[in-house]
Amino acid sequence: MKFLVRLTTMLPPEMNDERRNALLAAEAERGRELVTDGTIEQLWRLPGRLANVGVWSVPDADALHVALTSLPLWRWMDVQVEALANHPLTSTPTPLVTDAQRDHGRTD
Amino acid sequence: MKFLVRLTTMLPPEMNDERRNALLAAEAERGRELVTDGTIEQLWRLPGRLANVGVWSVPDADALHVALTSLPLWRWMDVQVEALANHPLTSTPTPLVTDAQRDHGRTD
Amino acid sequence: MKFLVRLTTMLPPEMNDERRNALLAAEAERGRELVTDGTIEQLWRLPGRLANVGVWSVPDADALHVALTSLPLWRWMDVQVEALANHPLTSTPTPLVTDAQRDHGRTD
Amino acid sequence: MKFLVRLTTMLPPEMNDERRNALLAAEAERGRELVTDGTIEQLWRLPGRLANVGVWSVPDADALHVALTSLPLWRWMDVQVEALANHPLTSTPTPLVTDAQRDHGRTD
Amino acid sequence: MKFLVRLTTMLPPEMNDERRNALLAAEAERGRELVTDGTIEQLWRLPGRLANVGVWSVPDADALHVALTSLPLWRWMDVQVEALANHPLTSTPTPLVTDAQRDHGRTD
Amino acid sequence: MKFLVRLTTMLPPEMNDERRNALLAAEAERGRELVTDGTIEQLWRLPGRLANVGVWSVPDADALHVALTSLPLWRWMDVQVEALANHPLTSTPTPLVTDAQRDHGRTD
Amino acid sequence: MKFLVRLTTMLPPEMNDERRNALLAAEAERGRELVTDGTIEQLWRLPGRLANVGVWSVPDADALHVALTSLPLWRWMDVQVEALANHPLTSTPTPLVTDAQRDHGRTD
Amino acid sequence: MKFLVRLTTMLPPEMNDERRNALLAAEAERGRELVTDGTIEQLWRLPGRLANVGVWSVPDADALHVALTSLPLWRWMDVQVEALANHPLTSTPTPLVTDAQRDHGRTD
Amino acid sequence: MKFLVRLTTMLPPEMNDERRNALLAAEAERGRELVTDGTIEQLWRLPGRLANVGVWSVPDADALHVALTSLPLWRWMDVQVEALANHPLTSTPTPLVTDAQRDHGRTD
Amino acid sequence: MKFLVRLTTMLPPEMNDERRNALLAAEAERGRELVTDGTIEQLWRLPGRLANVGVWSVPDADALHVALTSLPLWRWMDVQVEALANHPLTSTPTPLVTDAQRDHGRTD
Repeated sequence: MKFLVRLTTMLPPEMNDERRNALLAAEAERGRELVTDGTIEQLWRLPGRLANVGVWSVPDADALHVALTSLPLWRWMDVQVEALANHPLTSTPTPLVTDAQRDHGRTD
Repeated sequence: MKFLVRLTTMLPPEMNDERRNALLAAEAERGRELVTDGTIEQLWRLPGRLANVGVWSVPDADALHVALTSLPLWRWMDVQVEALANHPLTSTPTPLVTDAQRDHGRTD
Repeated sequence: MKFLVRLTTMLPPEMNDERRNALLAAEAERGRELVTDGTIEQLWRLPGRLANVGVWSVPDADALHVALTSLPLWRWMDVQVEALANHPLTSTPTPLVTDAQRDHGRTD
Repeated sequence: MKFLVRLTTMLPPEMNDERRNALLAAEAERGRELVTDGTIEQLWRLPGRLANVGVWSVPDADALHVALTSLPLWRWMDVQVEALANHPLTSTPTPLVTDAQRDHGRTD
Repeated sequence: MKFLVRLTTMLPPEMNDERRNALLAAEAERGRELVTDGTIEQLWRLPGRLANVGVWSVPDADALHVALTSLPLWRWMDVQVEALANHPLTSTPTPLVTDAQRDHGRTD
Repeated sequence: MKFLVRLTTMLPPEMNDERRNALLAAEAERGRELVTDGTIEQLWRLPGRLANVGVWSVPDADALHVALTSLPLWRWMDVQVEALANHPLTSTPTPLVTDAQRDHGRTD
Repeated sequence: MKFLVRLTTMLPPEMNDERRNALLAAEAERGRELVTDGTIEQLWRLPGRLANVGVWSVPDADALHVALTSLPLWRWMDVQVEALANHPLTSTPTPLVTDAQRDHGRTD
Repeated sequence: MKFLVRLTTMLPPEMNDERRNALLAAEAERGRELVTDGTIEQLWRLPGRLANVGVWSVPDADALHVALTSLPLWRWMDVQVEALANHPLTSTPTPLVTDAQRDHGRTD
Repeated sequence: MKFLVRLTTMLPPEMNDERRNALLAAEAERGRELVTDGTIEQLWRLPGRLANVGVWSVPDADALHVALTSLPLWRWMDVQVEALANHPLTSTPTPLVTDAQRDHGRTD
Repeated sequence: MKFLVRLTTMLPPEMNDERRNALLAAEAERGRELVTDGTIEQLWRLPGRLANVGVWSVPDADALHVALTSLPLWRWMDVQVEALANHPLTSTPTPLVTDAQRDHGRTD
């Protein structure tokens, strides 16, 4: 299953640099692991924000929960999750229910 | 995978009763099929609205898309989808990442 | 009466682990009691968040208030409550007011 | 059960006066019935809008759905429903869970 | 004049119980006075929240401001105020401007 | 009583000029009457929009409803109403409840 | 130029009374000066809130910025500013671009 | 005075191409005039939308209203207007009220 | 440059099937071209909606505008565009401005 | 690439003046550098707020991220970024996809 995950981190501005950099380093390390094991397929920064949007590939929502709550910065994060379905243009097309089928209320 | 699906149907008030009732009947029939085949596990009405919220159980988001677009009223619907993870209180608990593990950036 | 209840817990990230885990444990224990006594019928996690959505079954809104305010984490929660009506597809159908009846302003 | 119900009616401005006034009259008649049978306990206009807010008293959400969908103007309405619990200041107080009880996770 | 007033109290979760309960008690006492003198006509709890919605009856908005700012919990409150007009169904009807009159731009 | 009233008119762009200008003229005429009789105390345009914000002075919310629904454009309007209280800086000051009084829950 | 300015002050509830009342007094004094010099033309309280809405009359937005940032409570304020244009009903009418002129894309 | 103006045009998708292109052409022509006479100082497209954001330079809000309502597409537009003040970094600095001055409530 | 583009298509439910399917086919064809030429790098369906989210790779915002407005369904679309920056975890890292550098206001 | 960037700074009101003024000075200095090197093309204050909106000109989103995170006040900022495309009225026109081309799904 693929999810579009938007992570916005709200570290207190007054947090001392040492603790802040340690957390950011731990986050980067954990992130690298999740990229390496394929959990995080794609990741982009939202320019100007301590936030990113990425495509996470996991067996199911339970696994997604475990992966996300493993992030060192999780406690400071707002997490938005959207399930993604395959699009016929970029993957073996899932049969789009044609309008005809829908009008008869059947998809067989 | 389970999804919390919120369907709000906006039929034009001026639609003639005949067409309206035919669509509602086709929708009910298709809904019965989706309940029977286990796709729709639970369904509740939102009182006072032509809207419902339900728990849909499908293999993945692609299957959810096919099921939802098979609804006769789909063209008139606003669809909100939220992925659901199991909760330890009501299902075999998925290990909650303890804070200790998180601080060390590991979940093994 | 059934309610769809969405609980989002906002524990301060800086809360020390000991107090945090004690609260989470007390919450889980209280939750287990509410599941056991049937107040919480269904419960799902929202992946990636310290939040859940569930179906609570209570005599009325007063009872719901007592149950929700009994949660150890209540002071840190945002609580969203929606009343649920039965849906004819998944329960003994409540007569949907047919359009004809409505036009005459009667439901007898 | 009591609900705070907010009804906003969006009749098309171009609807001819005859049909508009007939619908408004049927709505008033149905409303009078619901006031007479105690379903609508209180009703106020929101000044300047074709909208009202009221306290509806019904056995449960199913009954509320039947009552609301019986309104002649229902098809043109946006309906917002909020469950109301009794307040100790204006009704026999429901025991507020004291903080002490909550800390011990019990309400007995 | 009648107002629908929605009060949401946001007490810091970490406030010690003694101060919290003292404030809640003072609030209840002041509330009882406002109910007794007719300022608060109706009051309901929003289940699961430290919030209520009520009908306040005051000479005008100035009096409403004085009454609301007299609440011990006022500093911790979000206050939403809506003016209410009488509804013909539940009070001596104020003449609804008929469409005919409006088209001629007169209400005499 | 004074209200801050925000009126946004949404005339269909395709409405023919003749009907549009006739409505705008009738609206201006009715507006002039409401200014003359003191109901509209102040009125400003929101630049670039068919919308205005104004101070309406009426005995109560019922009178405000009658005045607003008398506007020829009312059917095409979104109406936002806010009750205004006097401010001590620009009117004979209404006693601001001092913090001391509030702490003791009294305003006498 | 005239602006509709909405000021919502969020003083920390725990601020000690002495500092709170000193700030409120300094704010009132500064406000009186701005009323006296004509910068603040009109001011109303929003009942139940530490907030006001007013009409500020200044040469331009720079002057408005200087006036607003001179308020002792400015650091605790949310400031909403809307430019106001004259309305023909209450001031020497600015020629409304007639539809005819607009269709020809000219305003001369 | 400078304003940041955001114009979003909502032409009905079913409008025939001829009328649509005629309106777009008239809009471009009027826009060119407003650029030439300096009313529109800067203009950018919001990629993917029939919308633009621009800096309009006008004597005051009345002039802005006249300019905006002169646009052939005005009837189909949502218009958002924000007053802009000069910034000391890019224009002769307007004295920022120093905190010291503010504490004494004076700006002389 | 990469953009996260969210396209929500709102075809009128009453559009006849023939025109609807012709448009959908033309859209799919144009989409295939944009995938083939690399403009659309990734594309996913949002389950249950006639909407997709994708990563578009274009030289700049002008090129993005041309590509998006070339879509046959463009007139019926709501388009949301977000610029994406590279993330060090999944691309050659762009130097994150370290806190130290920022405190000295330099990025050299 | 050009971006419309909206920066809202939320400094804690209780921050002591010395630290506050030092940060504001460092911010102004860094801002001057970004204006000098052409990164910030235009900048305006939003009257009454510690906020500005500006046009930033950078090679791409990565460069924008580096520039924005170099601001001394970045930790206290809410950052909104919108990509800007050229508008034919104020720059060498990028060919607007004519409706004809779009209907044929081609832009060659």
